[in-house]
Amino acid sequence: MADPWQECMDHCLAVTMEAGKMIREALKKDISIMQKSSPVDLVTETDQKVEALIISSIKEKYPTHSFIGEESVAAGAPSILTDNPTWIIDPIDGTTNFVHRFPFVSVSIGFAVKKEIEFGIVYSCIEEKMYTARKGKGAFCNGAPIRVSEQKDITKSLVLTEMGLRTDPEHFKASMSNIQKILSIPVHGIRCPGSAAVNMCLVACGSADAYYHIGIHCWDMAGGAAIISEAGGVIMDVTGGPFDLMSRRLITASSTAIAERIAQQLQVFPCGRDDTVG
Amino acid sequence: MADPWQECMDHCLAVTMEAGKMIREALKKDISIMQKSSPVDLVTETDQKVEALIISSIKEKYPTHSFIGEESVAAGAPSILTDNPTWIIDPIDGTTNFVHRFPFVSVSIGFAVKKEIEFGIVYSCIEEKMYTARKGKGAFCNGAPIRVSEQKDITKSLVLTEMGLRTDPEHFKASMSNIQKILSIPVHGIRCPGSAAVNMCLVACGSADAYYHIGIHCWDMAGGAAIISEAGGVIMDVTGGPFDLMSRRLITASSTAIAERIAQQLQVFPCGRDDTVG
Repeated sequence: MADPWQECMDHCLAVTMEAGKMIREALKKDISIMQKSSPVDLVTETDQKVEALIISSIKEKYPTHSFIGEESVAAGAPSILTDNPTWIIDPIDGTTNFVHRFPFVSVSIGFAVKKEIEFGIVYSCIEEKMYTARKGKGAFCNGAPIRVSEQKDITKSLVLTEMGLRTDPEHFKASMSNIQKILSIPVHGIRCPGSAAVNMCLVACGSADAYYHIGIHCWDMAGGAAIISEAGGVIMDVTGGPFDLMSRRLITASSTAIAERIAQQLQVFPCGRDDTVG
Repeated sequence: MADPWQECMDHCLAVTMEAGKMIREALKKDISIMQKSSPVDLVTETDQKVEALIISSIKEKYPTHSFIGEESVAAGAPSILTDNPTWIIDPIDGTTNFVHRFPFVSVSIGFAVKKEIEFGIVYSCIEEKMYTARKGKGAFCNGAPIRVSEQKDITKSLVLTEMGLRTDPEHFKASMSNIQKILSIPVHGIRCPGSAAVNMCLVACGSADAYYHIGIHCWDMAGGAAIISEAGGVIMDVTGGPFDLMSRRLITASSTAIAERIAQQLQVFPCGRDDTVG
C-alpha cells in the first residue's frame, strides 16, 4: 500500500522551503531597523506572514485537517490534539535569535494522525539545513541520513538547554540550579543555542548528546520529536516517564542511559500544559 | 608607504584556510571513532598537526618572528609578549565543540608588533566563515564588511558567555551567579556557543551584543580582538578598566554603555595571567 501521508510530507517540505526563504528575506533588512526601531514588531510581522503562508497553503490542499500553533493559542484556545490529521506549526522557532540574526532560526512542523506524529520537518533556514523524518523511514539532513551519537557515558556528553529569566523567582532559581547540577555530574559542557527545534536536530545528528527543557511548547517539539526518534534517539519526560507532547517539557538524548541520568538530576517546576488554558 | 604587515596578513589568510581544511577533513572521520575510542586523542592529534602546519609555514617565511600558543605553554614557558612581531595562535578554538562536531570550531590568529595587534583572522571552519581585520582598515566576513549592532540598551541585548565546571567550587559559584545577575538585568537572552573566537566574531557582526569571559587565554582573544575593534566594538577588562591581552579575561560589546553595565554586574574571581607561570 502506498504511504498515505507521503504526499502531505512532500507538500510540507515545499512550503517549509518557501517559509525559510521568507525568513531569510526578512533578515536582509537593515540591521539598524532590526535593532533600533522595534525588533518585536518585525518578529510579529514576519511570524504572522510565515504562519499565514504555511497555513493557507496547507488548508487549500487539505481543508479538513486541523492546526495547532501560536496563532490558535493567541486567540485563547487551548491546543487540543484530536485523532484528526493535525499540523503542529512553529513558523519561527528562535524568535530572539531572529531579532539578533543569531544563526539558529528555524521553521518547525510536525504532523500527527490519531495523536501519533507521522513526520517532522525542521528547517534551520540561516544555516540552510533541512531536517526531515518520516515515521519508520529514518531521519535526514539535506537528504543525507543522520544518527544520534549513541554516546552512553554522561561524563563524555555535550548537553543543550536554554536559560531565560522566568517571571517566578523560584522557577528561575530551580532552572539555574539544574544547570549547575548537570555541569557538576560532570559533563563535557553545556551549550545554549536558542532554538528548541534546532537543539533537537543537533542531538539527532550527533553534534550534542542531550537536550532538556522545561517550559517549551508542543509546536517547538513536534517536528523535532519525529527527527530525534527516527535518528535513533530517546525522548522522555523530565521525570523519566513517557514523553507527553502537551506537557511543555522534555529530555531528548543519544541513549536511555544519558536521558535517565539527566532526569535524575533535574528539579521539576510547574509550567502548565499546552492543552489547558490559563 | 606600503603597509609593512599586509604581506604577513596575506600569508596568514592562506595558511588559515589550509588549517581550516585540515580540521574539516579530521571531522569527516567516522563519528563512532570520535565518540567511542578516544576523542581527546583525536583533538590532540589534530590540534598538534594544525599548529605544526601553521607555525612551520610562518617560520619558513618569517624566521625572526615570535610565537605564542598552547604549544609554548605546554612546554612550561609563560607567554611573554615582546616588541618583536608575534603570532598568537589557537589552532583549534572550541576543542569540545570539535570533539562533538558542534558547529562552532575555529582557527584563531592574532599578529602583534610592539605589543599592539596589527591584524586578526578567525576562521569558523565548519560554517566556512572567514573573519578578517587589519588595524585601521575595517573588519570583514568572507570579504563583506561587518559592523557591531551598535545596541546601547542592555535590556535589548543578546549576551554570550561560556559555562564550565571549574575546579575551584567558589569560582564555579561566582561564575553561575554572574550568569544569574546578567539574566536578571534583564537581557533578551544568554547564548553559550562554545568557541571564544567565534563569540567575538558574533559580536563583531552584530549577531550578539556582548560577550564576557573570565578564564580565557590570550590565543583565544588575539584574533578576535582585532576583529571586534575594527567592527566598531568595544573591548575592556571585566573590571571596566582597559583590556589586557594577558589578563585571561574580557568584555566585548557593541557599545561602551553595554560593556560597562556588564562590568558593574560581574563578580571577578582570580584566574591567573598568561604571562606568569603557575
